[in-house]
Amino acid sequence: MDQKTLGILGGGQLGRMLVEAANRLNVKTVILEKGADCSAKQISNSTEHVDGSFTDPEKIQELAKKCNVLTIEIEHVNTETLADLKKLNPRLKIYPTPETIKIIQDKFSQKLHLTKNNIPVVESYPIENICPEELNDMGTKLNYPYMLKARTFAYDGRGNFVIKNKNSIDEAIKFFTENKQNVAKLYAEKWCPFKVELAVMVVRSLNNKVYSYSTVETIHKDNICHVVYAPARIPDSVQFEARLVAENAIKSFDGAGIFGVEMFYSQEGKIIINEIAPRPHNSGHYTIDACVTSQFEAHLRSVLDLPMPEGFTNFTTCDTNAIMINVLGDREVKDKELEYCERALATPNASVYLYGKESKPQRKLGHINIVSSSMHDCERKLHHIVENTSLDPHVTDTTLNKPLVGIIMGSDSDLPVMSAACDILKQFSVPFDVTIVSAHRTPHRMSKYAVEASKRGMKVIIAGAGGAAHLPGMVAAMTPLPVIGVPVKGSCLDGVDSLHSIVQMPRGVPVATVAINNSTNAALLAVRILGAYNDTYFQKMQAFLLKQEEEILQKAQKLEDEGYEQYLTEMKK
Amino acid sequence: MDQKTLGILGGGQLGRMLVEAANRLNVKTVILEKGADCSAKQISNSTEHVDGSFTDPEKIQELAKKCNVLTIEIEHVNTETLADLKKLNPRLKIYPTPETIKIIQDKFSQKLHLTKNNIPVVESYPIENICPEELNDMGTKLNYPYMLKARTFAYDGRGNFVIKNKNSIDEAIKFFTENKQNVAKLYAEKWCPFKVELAVMVVRSLNNKVYSYSTVETIHKDNICHVVYAPARIPDSVQFEARLVAENAIKSFDGAGIFGVEMFYSQEGKIIINEIAPRPHNSGHYTIDACVTSQFEAHLRSVLDLPMPEGFTNFTTCDTNAIMINVLGDREVKDKELEYCERALATPNASVYLYGKESKPQRKLGHINIVSSSMHDCERKLHHIVENTSLDPHVTDTTLNKPLVGIIMGSDSDLPVMSAACDILKQFSVPFDVTIVSAHRTPHRMSKYAVEASKRGMKVIIAGAGGAAHLPGMVAAMTPLPVIGVPVKGSCLDGVDSLHSIVQMPRGVPVATVAINNSTNAALLAVRILGAYNDTYFQKMQAFLLKQEEEILQKAQKLEDEGYEQYLTEMKK
Repeated sequence: MDQKTLGILGGGQLGRMLVEAANRLNVKTVILEKGADCSAKQISNSTEHVDGSFTDPEKIQELAKKCNVLTIEIEHVNTETLADLKKLNPRLKIYPTPETIKIIQDKFSQKLHLTKNNIPVVESYPIENICPEELNDMGTKLNYPYMLKARTFAYDGRGNFVIKNKNSIDEAIKFFTENKQNVAKLYAEKWCPFKVELAVMVVRSLNNKVYSYSTVETIHKDNICHVVYAPARIPDSVQFEARLVAENAIKSFDGAGIFGVEMFYSQEGKIIINEIAPRPHNSGHYTIDACVTSQFEAHLRSVLDLPMPEGFTNFTTCDTNAIMINVLGDREVKDKELEYCERALATPNASVYLYGKESKPQRKLGHINIVSSSMHDCERKLHHIVENTSLDPHVTDTTLNKPLVGIIMGSDSDLPVMSAACDILKQFSVPFDVTIVSAHRTPHRMSKYAVEASKRGMKVIIAGAGGAAHLPGMVAAMTPLPVIGVPVKGSCLDGVDSLHSIVQMPRGVPVATVAINNSTNAALLAVRILGAYNDTYFQKMQAFLLKQEEEILQKAQKLEDEGYEQYLTEMKK
Repeated sequence: MDQKTLGILGGGQLGRMLVEAANRLNVKTVILEKGADCSAKQISNSTEHVDGSFTDPEKIQELAKKCNVLTIEIEHVNTETLADLKKLNPRLKIYPTPETIKIIQDKFSQKLHLTKNNIPVVESYPIENICPEELNDMGTKLNYPYMLKARTFAYDGRGNFVIKNKNSIDEAIKFFTENKQNVAKLYAEKWCPFKVELAVMVVRSLNNKVYSYSTVETIHKDNICHVVYAPARIPDSVQFEARLVAENAIKSFDGAGIFGVEMFYSQEGKIIINEIAPRPHNSGHYTIDACVTSQFEAHLRSVLDLPMPEGFTNFTTCDTNAIMINVLGDREVKDKELEYCERALATPNASVYLYGKESKPQRKLGHINIVSSSMHDCERKLHHIVENTSLDPHVTDTTLNKPLVGIIMGSDSDLPVMSAACDILKQFSVPFDVTIVSAHRTPHRMSKYAVEASKRGMKVIIAGAGGAAHLPGMVAAMTPLPVIGVPVKGSCLDGVDSLHSIVQMPRGVPVATVAINNSTNAALLAVRILGAYNDTYFQKMQAFLLKQEEEILQKAQKLEDEGYEQYLTEMKK
């Protein structure tokens, strides 16, 4: 850990959080940004900071003289100057490399690069000359609506225009010429209807290894990132695919650094890259609280060539869930947004981060992280914080929830018995899925189900079966998860055949067996198992037991008050 | 959240971490400390910092003029000046109050105060006049060995002397006179043999509420805090008692702020306060990673009268465990301690914090936090980090581990069957306890056991019983935890009586029943339940299943190789 000085082009909140991470590791930072009191400079007493623009060649040179390593917190920098510096001084390290920044800062060349490397992106074409004819041709090629986007210097939706139909073409031309966008640099992009937007932070180290954080779900409003759910509320397999796509994309660049990869999970179920940022990213702010190593520290470690944690860790513990919400300047009343920061301070499990910036409408002034072992708990807290504000908390779509419990049965004839388990799990708001898996008739399907269950994030499996009931035991033999067996009563032997088939497992492979036909208890047992580590379910189970007790006490009172004869008469009615 | 400026007396690492927390909330801080580049000033670009000593009345006045609220990061400040300031300017808030600091900074008056408030402390007496006679009298009163301690300006063991026997008295007098300790201010303290040293961080808010963090275990070496285990590796009930004692102690003071309460868990099983620090404390550094709200942010919130999280949160998720280890300057080679910081960077789940201080032998230069869902995992990582260094990782005494699984049985006659469960849990390194609880003969003991199990940190209960086996079901009725039932075979009915008594529970109260006499499977099921949320146990279960498979495959190979006749002959041997 030799002492290096890190120069950062840009001094906004991303720079500030980089400086915070650097402070913790005794890494000296020097900031290039206009003004002496920008967000990043506020938290470093260095007298070396440079006052100027991160696009000004002279200022970049001045910064470079003070540092061993240069990095960026914004991609709209002067890459030519950086490339020249690198040539002139080979001992100066610049990460991400000027070449990588150059490719990425032009969104269309970014797309070309990804396409060349077989990474899925949205279909796009350059606009050579903005005029009604060309935009009309593009409409024929891409269909309406389509997107017209500035290739460079665009972020948070700035420089984007939706061409709804032929009639929007004139308006689009007016938008780009009046807003002084660089009209020579535009491209057209096919409209991509998506289920959710995803993002993955990927770190690239100098030995060409890439490490990805979890796949998160980003919710934008007016083109600004608004809420992030970590992990994304989509099946594990899709999360995994998104990480793979993101990792492959970042492998295709050189140099080191962290990259934010924004993706669409399309209506057709495909993962398609939307765009990449070669720096820490708003979608990764949750990592400060939910992960051991934050995106900012990961970036530092990669550009300074410090060790990365072996087998890169993600969440702090295996059941961490997080929601991040941006604190945007109120549209009407200055500093009004601090009201919900204050509410966040009063909310358990929430942390507030403010960036030392002056409040302006819709400006990113801070963010709030909520962390819990249950996403439902995070959501409840989010609701509490943003209640009665203009913020829309985007309630969970429970159909997207990944199942914690899997209910399987050998045959659909078991469903009338097993449905009671489903009812209980619904009642306790436990995400679950239910299907038919037969040990004797679909043995391979059964193997696949058992082997994949834990990878899908399941914690408990409930298996119902009748007769020579092999399903619970066979599944237990192929998963380390707890398996609960429900003996289903058949047409003869009163279910004792199923009971013994399920409960009398050999030493080594246990099945948690419940009473014959009592899938209610199987589900309640599953809730208890979840509750052993998840406080929300623990509390719910405690409440359930209390309610059961109260019901019996009421009946006892009634029996005592009315006498047994009257009570019996009423019961017989 | 109106803007307040916070003045901090002292600019060491505790001040630095307070400033970091303040930066996150846009709270302006001004530091009083000698030099322009002390640890705390490094991470704030304010031009208002005061250069001087936190004991200098003029400098304290200069600081006060710039602030709305004053606080401390070290208790050896000038409390008279603070008290005068408060009188002169009632709008200036000072927390902790000068009165509280004054009581605490004199360790003997601290003890008198606590004793007056019925808080258990070690027996102590003031030394009026250090001389052989008085120390000899004290030896008669307290027995040998006893401690001689400076009442003020002592920390990290400085100003402490152990009087082993009569012969040490002269040496003690020499120690205190030669070391220029204030000989007028000493006290004698009874020797307190302890099982472990504990500490609890307690926050006191302006509305007189106190909030405590978890009870942690501190391990000192040469009187300097070395390693912290959070939570402490002692039974939950003892942890709870320690929090209560600490909370009561802090209730007895006025004003706001965070307090570090150091305690002994004595050989006789008593909780006794050792000393209190009226500020953030080394034993609370783990909170930066393991808790949503760190000790530093909690201190800020209390002294600035910001909202505290309702129902104050402790650990990030319910299964968080942490170990903190201090980074002390190497005794021989400057900066050598950075070697194990680097090793920590390469270790998953570890975070490194350096304080921007120059390396000097045994100086506190930083700390490392390790966080995981399993304490065993934390310990493994600690070992990896400190391997082959002078640091001694203090391996877990597993007898102190709090049980995750409780094994109970109706009678000692069930033990031959139930002991197999114990063997399995030992094999998987699951902390458990085992006892006799009879539903029919000790019904009240059973209720107590069931109700307290979850509070003790248990995750699963295994209950074995025979005949009209009521124990598993009754326990399940009184706890929301998963209960596993083992039917124990009696002298008649082949165990079917026990099986049906256990498995045929009514709807509402499930018991996870395993095969007759198969407590092995009960324990394996318990490990699966733990493994659903604890990755260490999940991996171990997966390895166990693989090993089982391999054993059978070896047997299959042998049977194929040797033929069934030879194999059978060998089996019969």
